[in-house]
Amino acid sequence: MLKELEKKKVFSGYQYRYQHDSQVLKCSMVFTLFLPKLDNKQTIPLIWWLSGLTCDDQNFATKGGFQAYAQANQQAIVIPDTSPRGEGVPDDDAYDLGQGASFYLDASQEPWSQNYLMYTYLSQELPELVKSLIPNFSGQEAIMGHSMGGYGALMLALRQPERFQSVSAFAPITNPSQVEWGKKAFSNYLGDNHHQWQTYDPIYLLDQEKVPPMLITQGTADEFYPNQLTEEAFLSAANQHNHQVTYNKEEAYDHSYYTIASFIGQHLAFHHDHLRDNI
Amino acid sequence: MLKELEKKKVFSGYQYRYQHDSQVLKCSMVFTLFLPKLDNKQTIPLIWWLSGLTCDDQNFATKGGFQAYAQANQQAIVIPDTSPRGEGVPDDDAYDLGQGASFYLDASQEPWSQNYLMYTYLSQELPELVKSLIPNFSGQEAIMGHSMGGYGALMLALRQPERFQSVSAFAPITNPSQVEWGKKAFSNYLGDNHHQWQTYDPIYLLDQEKVPPMLITQGTADEFYPNQLTEEAFLSAANQHNHQVTYNKEEAYDHSYYTIASFIGQHLAFHHDHLRDNI
Repeated sequence: MLKELEKKKVFSGYQYRYQHDSQVLKCSMVFTLFLPKLDNKQTIPLIWWLSGLTCDDQNFATKGGFQAYAQANQQAIVIPDTSPRGEGVPDDDAYDLGQGASFYLDASQEPWSQNYLMYTYLSQELPELVKSLIPNFSGQEAIMGHSMGGYGALMLALRQPERFQSVSAFAPITNPSQVEWGKKAFSNYLGDNHHQWQTYDPIYLLDQEKVPPMLITQGTADEFYPNQLTEEAFLSAANQHNHQVTYNKEEAYDHSYYTIASFIGQHLAFHHDHLRDNI
Repeated sequence: MLKELEKKKVFSGYQYRYQHDSQVLKCSMVFTLFLPKLDNKQTIPLIWWLSGLTCDDQNFATKGGFQAYAQANQQAIVIPDTSPRGEGVPDDDAYDLGQGASFYLDASQEPWSQNYLMYTYLSQELPELVKSLIPNFSGQEAIMGHSMGGYGALMLALRQPERFQSVSAFAPITNPSQVEWGKKAFSNYLGDNHHQWQTYDPIYLLDQEKVPPMLITQGTADEFYPNQLTEEAFLSAANQHNHQVTYNKEEAYDHSYYTIASFIGQHLAFHHDHLRDNI
């Protein structure tokens, strides 16, 4: 059952917050959806935003400053939560594991494998539901995110290159197999099978003929850069496979939503260029 | 002693969060200051933002979406806290009295009169400090705010019409003497002397020859409109005294920061039109 928790008018459009019972995640989930006011009878694309560690669907909604651009570009924006939630859902005291830290994959290990199936949730259950809420959906999708969510956006786009027209990320974890955040998450959710790790690591997913165009923004004053947010291996692998990545280092910007707000207009313009109306 | 708590790059400018010991309020205070990156060697004006009940200096900083416009218009923006703060400062369990609910006046009643001197703080101590942090200050000021802070902006601008070039407000309490929020605050902070109430009520302050131009935005879906946020008596008094008020009712917008973000560009353009560079 879908329940509308909130409806806010913002920049002429409406931003909704919904709750639903997820069959895949076996818990109650919330998500936020912005629908622009239509300029005319055109159809509009759907762009996914995946948030970082500790966030839920509200951080980007309240602090991302995307609505003015999404209204101008006529784009629907959906913001899922960052993990399954609730008392019955396994968790960990650390901020970078369990609730708020799903890494958007399908976990194979106990105690996570019952609920932590975010990859399937974001690929099947939630898209079906969200698309039903966009009366004039064009059929086209793009995806973007921040930090863990920047990783999630790259991973989903590279695993589903036919689904997404374009992908962008702020401060993404491009090579989770090789950094502390990723190694901790992968070993807990996926166990020791490093072949399985590679099926979720963007670097290994670059090894295919055609992938969506990629835009990455990385602030140089980011407190997690370059420790968790390495770029060299990813850019080198992309180059090796002749894939197009626009990688922008932004001087003195940090890991916060202020950086996202400052460049989200550029990211939505990038997606706008790659999304075409199906009329 | 001034302490820098935070420095964030946003839309090319820098947003600072400072802490200082207030002599007037007899407690430690924080405030946020946005300084745009200068386009050239021009001087820039200072615009005050006063927040609503329960807020501090961070709500508008993170959710107001003002920085892109302040950068483009070359405006410094300062966001004070909404009251004195700390363990030694009197408080009340209700959200609309005590800490977070100063109403920006100088209290005359116990237990408030020792610390709750926000009017003096915003007129003398804080301006002096803030101006010293703007290397290229033009000498010109404007003021704006939301709800209780919209009231505060109107009240300060009408009491100091020579100081402020313009004033704007979102969902302001225009007539505090006549609504529950204002009557509760005024009776606690000022006692029963209704003559003193009038010196803080914008409606009575309209009775003078020259006041700054005023812009007010009010959402029609605001949960406190019109109960706490009456406009008729204020607009009628302004009209009677031949003062210019632009009053915009915005269909379906509510009391949240989404409304502020949607129209802050319009407000900053209004101030931009009335603030002139002193070069």
